[in-house]
Amino acid sequence: MPRLVLHPDRLFPADPDTRAIARALYALVAQAPIISPHGHTDPEWFASDAPWENATQLLLAPDHYLFRMLYSQGVSLDALGVPRQGGALPATDPRAAWRTFAAHWHLFRGTPSAMWLNHVFAEVFGIDQTLDETSADHYYDVIGAALASPAFRPRALFDRFNIELLATTEGAADDLAHHQAIRASGWRGNVVTTYRPDSVIDPEHDAFARDMVRFAALSGEDVTTWAGYLAAHRRRRADFRAMGATATDHGFLTPRTANLSRAECEALFAKVIGGKADAAEAELFRAQMLTEMARMSLDDGMTMQIHPGATRNHNAQLFASHGRDKGADIPRATEYVEALRPMLDLFGNEPALKIILFTLDETTYTRELAPLAGHYPCLKLGPAWWFHDSPEGMRRFREMTTETAGFYNTVGFNDDTRAFLSIPARHDVARRIDCGFLARLVAEHRLADWEAADLIVELTTGLVRRAYGLPVPA
Amino acid sequence: MPRLVLHPDRLFPADPDTRAIARALYALVAQAPIISPHGHTDPEWFASDAPWENATQLLLAPDHYLFRMLYSQGVSLDALGVPRQGGALPATDPRAAWRTFAAHWHLFRGTPSAMWLNHVFAEVFGIDQTLDETSADHYYDVIGAALASPAFRPRALFDRFNIELLATTEGAADDLAHHQAIRASGWRGNVVTTYRPDSVIDPEHDAFARDMVRFAALSGEDVTTWAGYLAAHRRRRADFRAMGATATDHGFLTPRTANLSRAECEALFAKVIGGKADAAEAELFRAQMLTEMARMSLDDGMTMQIHPGATRNHNAQLFASHGRDKGADIPRATEYVEALRPMLDLFGNEPALKIILFTLDETTYTRELAPLAGHYPCLKLGPAWWFHDSPEGMRRFREMTTETAGFYNTVGFNDDTRAFLSIPARHDVARRIDCGFLARLVAEHRLADWEAADLIVELTTGLVRRAYGLPVPA
Amino acid sequence: MPRLVLHPDRLFPADPDTRAIARALYALVAQAPIISPHGHTDPEWFASDAPWENATQLLLAPDHYLFRMLYSQGVSLDALGVPRQGGALPATDPRAAWRTFAAHWHLFRGTPSAMWLNHVFAEVFGIDQTLDETSADHYYDVIGAALASPAFRPRALFDRFNIELLATTEGAADDLAHHQAIRASGWRGNVVTTYRPDSVIDPEHDAFARDMVRFAALSGEDVTTWAGYLAAHRRRRADFRAMGATATDHGFLTPRTANLSRAECEALFAKVIGGKADAAEAELFRAQMLTEMARMSLDDGMTMQIHPGATRNHNAQLFASHGRDKGADIPRATEYVEALRPMLDLFGNEPALKIILFTLDETTYTRELAPLAGHYPCLKLGPAWWFHDSPEGMRRFREMTTETAGFYNTVGFNDDTRAFLSIPARHDVARRIDCGFLARLVAEHRLADWEAADLIVELTTGLVRRAYGLPVPA
Repeated sequence: MPRLVLHPDRLFPADPDTRAIARALYALVAQAPIISPHGHTDPEWFASDAPWENATQLLLAPDHYLFRMLYSQGVSLDALGVPRQGGALPATDPRAAWRTFAAHWHLFRGTPSAMWLNHVFAEVFGIDQTLDETSADHYYDVIGAALASPAFRPRALFDRFNIELLATTEGAADDLAHHQAIRASGWRGNVVTTYRPDSVIDPEHDAFARDMVRFAALSGEDVTTWAGYLAAHRRRRADFRAMGATATDHGFLTPRTANLSRAECEALFAKVIGGKADAAEAELFRAQMLTEMARMSLDDGMTMQIHPGATRNHNAQLFASHGRDKGADIPRATEYVEALRPMLDLFGNEPALKIILFTLDETTYTRELAPLAGHYPCLKLGPAWWFHDSPEGMRRFREMTTETAGFYNTVGFNDDTRAFLSIPARHDVARRIDCGFLARLVAEHRLADWEAADLIVELTTGLVRRAYGLPVPA
Repeated sequence: MPRLVLHPDRLFPADPDTRAIARALYALVAQAPIISPHGHTDPEWFASDAPWENATQLLLAPDHYLFRMLYSQGVSLDALGVPRQGGALPATDPRAAWRTFAAHWHLFRGTPSAMWLNHVFAEVFGIDQTLDETSADHYYDVIGAALASPAFRPRALFDRFNIELLATTEGAADDLAHHQAIRASGWRGNVVTTYRPDSVIDPEHDAFARDMVRFAALSGEDVTTWAGYLAAHRRRRADFRAMGATATDHGFLTPRTANLSRAECEALFAKVIGGKADAAEAELFRAQMLTEMARMSLDDGMTMQIHPGATRNHNAQLFASHGRDKGADIPRATEYVEALRPMLDLFGNEPALKIILFTLDETTYTRELAPLAGHYPCLKLGPAWWFHDSPEGMRRFREMTTETAGFYNTVGFNDDTRAFLSIPARHDVARRIDCGFLARLVAEHRLADWEAADLIVELTTGLVRRAYGLPVPA
Repeated sequence: MPRLVLHPDRLFPADPDTRAIARALYALVAQAPIISPHGHTDPEWFASDAPWENATQLLLAPDHYLFRMLYSQGVSLDALGVPRQGGALPATDPRAAWRTFAAHWHLFRGTPSAMWLNHVFAEVFGIDQTLDETSADHYYDVIGAALASPAFRPRALFDRFNIELLATTEGAADDLAHHQAIRASGWRGNVVTTYRPDSVIDPEHDAFARDMVRFAALSGEDVTTWAGYLAAHRRRRADFRAMGATATDHGFLTPRTANLSRAECEALFAKVIGGKADAAEAELFRAQMLTEMARMSLDDGMTMQIHPGATRNHNAQLFASHGRDKGADIPRATEYVEALRPMLDLFGNEPALKIILFTLDETTYTRELAPLAGHYPCLKLGPAWWFHDSPEGMRRFREMTTETAGFYNTVGFNDDTRAFLSIPARHDVARRIDCGFLARLVAEHRLADWEAADLIVELTTGLVRRAYGLPVPA
C-alpha cells in the first residue's frame, strides 16, 4: 500500500529557483497563528467540548465537498450516512459509509478536498498510508480511537491548531446561547460570531416566517413596522457584537442594492411583512436591505461581507429529500457594477466603511471587482471563495486582481468551512499558494525579495486583522 | 530551408523535472489505440476505400480551420479551391491553391493547425523540410504520389493509425448506406455512426423541410403527429444503434431544455409541423426535444452529447456564396444552470443516464459546468471543444474543471474532426497536454506519481470507453 | 534604504532554458524604435517644448492609475494635488503631495504602475534607491532639478526615447493648433493626431452641445442636417489626416452597430440634433455612426479603432467634484458578436478596411474576438488594454487569442498613455512579455527558434506599421 506523505515543498512551483524563494517566504509564516474571520463551524462544539464520535460523523457526513463528488458518480447520500431532511440519519452503518467513501477516494485526485483530507489524516491523526478500500478500516479505527481521547476534543484541537480567532456564523434568529456558554465557561479560546441576517431579510427564504418571529422575540422590537424592523437589526447587531462579532455576512443570489426613499421603504416593507411581495419586490427588498446594512455598518463599525452568486438548491428532488447544503448549489453569472451603484452612490467614498466582496464568477475579477476595489475606499476583495478556494482558484485570484487592485485591497484568507479539522490544512494551502505567487514575482524580478517578505506577512495576518477590525497582538 | 522536426518533448513543460515526469507518463500511453467517439469524417471513405486525389482536396479545401485564417488575411476562398454553395469547385488549379496556402503558412504559427499539419507532414508523409513558398511544389508532389499508393488509402491509414473505434456523425435523414457498406464489405475497421437529429428538430434549420420528408420515409412513421414523430426518432435511433452508434449529438445555439405537458407538446408540435412556429416557439421546441432525447437515452442507453453556443453562419455574404461550415461560426455566451434545469428536474439524478456537456464559452468551466458535473449523476464534461481544442485551451480546461469536477467526471478526448489524417496528431496533442498537466501536479506534490500513472491511462482510454458505453478489450 | 535596480532579466520566465531564449529574442528588439500609434499625450508639450515643473505635476497628478489606488486606500485627491472639476488646483503643496505618494508607494507592489515608474525613476532620472517616505524629498529634488535642464524638455526626451512615431488623440472639435505649431516649428519629431469624434457622436456626452458648435465652425458645414453632419465628419477627417492622422478612435459603452436606411438616419438625426433622442435612440445613433465611420474609413483609408466597455464616471460624487478621468471608470461585460453584425454584414469582407477591436472584458478573447478576427478580413485585435495592459494581462491576451486568431491578426502594442515619461517603460514591458511568451512556445517545441525571431520583430514593429498604415522605413 502506498505511503501517505505530505511533501514539505507541496504546492510550491517546480522551478528550483522559484521554489527556493517560495520556501524562504513560507518559513516566515508557516508557524503564524490561524486567524479565521469567516466560517461555519458549530459553536456548540466549543461550548460543550464534547468528543466527536467517528470518522464518518466528523469528516464525511457534514462535508458537502465530499458527498457532492461521490453523488455525481452514482453513490447515494444514504450510503454515505448523510442525514435526510429533518435530520433523520439513514440506516447505514457509519463504518460501512466510511468504506464506501474510501473505495471512491480516487475520485478526489487533483481536488482540494484530497489535499485537505490528506493533511488531516497525516498531521492530525498521524496516519502514514493512503486511503483506499484496504486501509478503510484502519483509518476508521485510528480516527475513532483518537477522537475518544482528550487530546482530540474540540478545545484541545483549537489550541493545538494555534487559532488566534475563529468566527462562526449565526442567523439573526439565533439566541447565541453557545457563544454565551463559551464565554461563561472561562475557556480562553477566541471564538466569535458573525451576524448573518439572510433568513429575516429574504422574503423568499424558507425560514423567513419562522425566523421573523424569533427575531421579534430576541430583539424585543415590533418588527412589523419598518422602523421597528430596522431597530431590531440594530439591537441584534449589538447582541452579536457582545459575542465578539466584528462582521456581518449577506448571501443573496445577486449583489443588487437600492436607495429608496423612506416612504418607499415603508410601503415595500408592508408588502413583505404582509406576505404580498412578488419576486421583483422581494429582490428589491433584499437590495434595499444591503444598503441599510451598509448604513448600520457605518454607524457600528462592523465589516460587511457580501457573498452573492449561488443558485441554491438547484436539485429539486434532492432538496425535497435532504434539504439545504447538500452540494447542489450552482454558481451563476454575477454583475456588480450596476448592482452596487445605489449603495456606492451613498457610501462609496467612506474610508471608514469596510465592505468585502466575494464572487463565484471569476470573470468579474479583472472586469469588475479589481477595478471597483482599486477605486472605492469602502470596497475590499474577499479571497477566492468556495469552488475557487483551491490552488488553481487562488492562483487565478492573485493573477487577475493584483495588477489592478494591488495586494492591499485584499483581506487575507477565509477558510469558510464547517470542517473544523481541515482548518489548518486550508490555511496552509493558502499560505503556500501565496508564497508561490510572490516567489514567481520575485523570480521574474517584478518584486524585490524584501517586498515579498513584507507581503507574505501581510497576506497571512496583517490584512485580515485590519479588514475585520481585529486587535493586533503586541 | 529549415528542417521540419517533431521534437520528442514537444508540448511538455520546459522545467526539466516536470518534463521528465511528463515523458514518463507519456510513455504509458504513446502507443495506446485511438478511440474517437465523436467526429465528422466521411464514412464513404471507408466504404469505398477510394484514394484521395491531392493535397489541396484532402488537406486544405475541407478544413475550415485553415481557410478561415487565410480568409481573415484577405485570401479568397476561390484561391484556395474551396467549393461554392452547391458544391461547384472554383476554377483554381489545386496546385496553385496549395502554393497560395504554402505562401501563407506563417499565419498559423502558434496555432494548433500548424502543430497538427506538421505532424501529418512529418509522420504520415515523411517530409523533413518546413512548408513555405519554396517547398510548396515538393509537398504537393510528395503528398500526391503517396496518395496514389495503396498504403495511403483510407482503410490502410485507419489500420496504420491504430484506431480502435471511429465514430462519424450522421443526420436523422441519412440512410446510413455507407455504414451498411462498410459492414457488408467484411473490412474489420470499427467505424460507427452517431445520431445527430438537428435538422429534423430545429424548425429553423435550412434543411428542416427536406429532411423531415426523408425522416418520415426512413422511419416509416407518420411524423406529422407528435406521437408518430417521437416514434420516428425511436425507430431511427435503433437504426443508428444497428450501425454501431452508442451516442447522439445535439448542436443548438443554447442548451435550453423544457418540460411541457403532453398536451402542450402536441400543440407546439402542430405549430412546428404546420410551419407556424415563431422564433420563441422554435426555441421551445428544441428545448423540449432535448428533454425527449434524454428520456429516450434513458430507455435505449445511448449517451447524449450537447454542443451548444455556436452562432452559425455569422457572415451572411459568405453563407450566400459558399454555404455552411466555412469558418464563419462564432461562439456566444452560453448559460447552462437555468437552461438545463427542466431536464435535470426530471432526469438529473439518474446514474444510468449519460449526458456530456460541451462549451465554447470557457467562462462556464468553473462557474457552471464543473459545479454541475460535480453534482449531478447524469452529467459529464466533454473535452475542450473546437476553438479550445488546442494546447492552451486544453490546459485551461483541466485547470478550471479538475478541482471541482475531478478527472472522473470528464470523458477523455474527442478529435471532432473531418480531417482524417490529423486524427493521430490531435490525439497525440491531447495526450501530451494531459501528461504535462499531470506532471505539474506531481512536481508540485499535489498528486502521487502512481496516481498520475493511473490517471493518464484513464484519460486516454478508460474514461472514454465508459462514457460512450464502448466495450473494454480483454 | 534598499537599492532600486532594474534587473536585465525582469519579466522573463524563471525557468533557465526558457529565460535564455527570451533573452535572445529580446536582444533583437531591445533597441527597436518606439512606435506609439495610440495614446493621450498632450501635443502642446511638443508644440511649446516648455519644461515640466516638478514630480507631482508631471508624474502624479495626471496619472489616474496612481491616484485611483491611493484613493481606494483612503487618500484624498486633494492631498495628491489632483485638480478639481474646472481645473482649480487644491492648496496642497506639490512636495507634500509627493511625500504622501511616497509614503503609500508600497500599495503598488505587484502592479504595472510600480514597474513603469521604477523604470522612469531609474532610467530617465538615474535614481538608484527605492521610493519611500525617507527618499521622497531626494526624489522630488532630483526630478525637479532634472526637469529644469534642457535635456528633460519634451522634445529632447522624445529624441532620447527613440520614438519613431507618436500619435495623440484629439476630438472632432479640436482645432489642431498644437499639431500645426509642431509642424510649423521645423522640429522633426513625428507627432500625429487621431480622430476621436465621440463628443459629437454621442448625444449623451456632457460636451455634445458645446462641441457640435465648434464642429460646425471648424468644418464649415451645416451640421443640423444629416448630409451636412456627415460632410462635416469627412471634412474634419481630412483635416486630421493633414496633421498625420492615419486612424480614428471610438469609445462608447457598447460596440453596437446599425444599418439604417437613409430615411431612418435622417429621422434619427433630427431627434438627436433637436435634443429629443431618448437613451435608446442615442444608443442607436452611436451604433449607426460606427457604421458610418467604417464606411468613411473604406473611402479614406483611415484605420478604425473601437474601445468599448467602460462605464465612465461610475462614482457620482467624485465626478461632481473632480470631473472625468479620475480613476472611476469601471469595465462592464461586453458583447461583440451581435453588436458588430450590422456593420460586418456591410463591410466585413473588405480586406481594405482595417478595424481594430479592443476590450475590457477578457472573457471575449477566446469566445468572441479571436474567432471574429480569425475570420473577418476587416477585423484585427488591439493589444491588451487599460486594466489589462500589464504583464499578466498581456500574457492572457496571447494565451487566449493566438491559437484562434494567430499573431498576424494582432497589431502590436499601444501604450495608450498620457504619462509621456513612461512610454519607454511600457513598450519595454510589452516586448519582454512577448519575448517570454514566444520563448515558452520555443521551449515547448511549439515554434521554431527562427520563427520566434521573425515574430518578435513583427510584434514590435511590423504589425503596427501595417495595421495603422504607417510608412516602413528603408
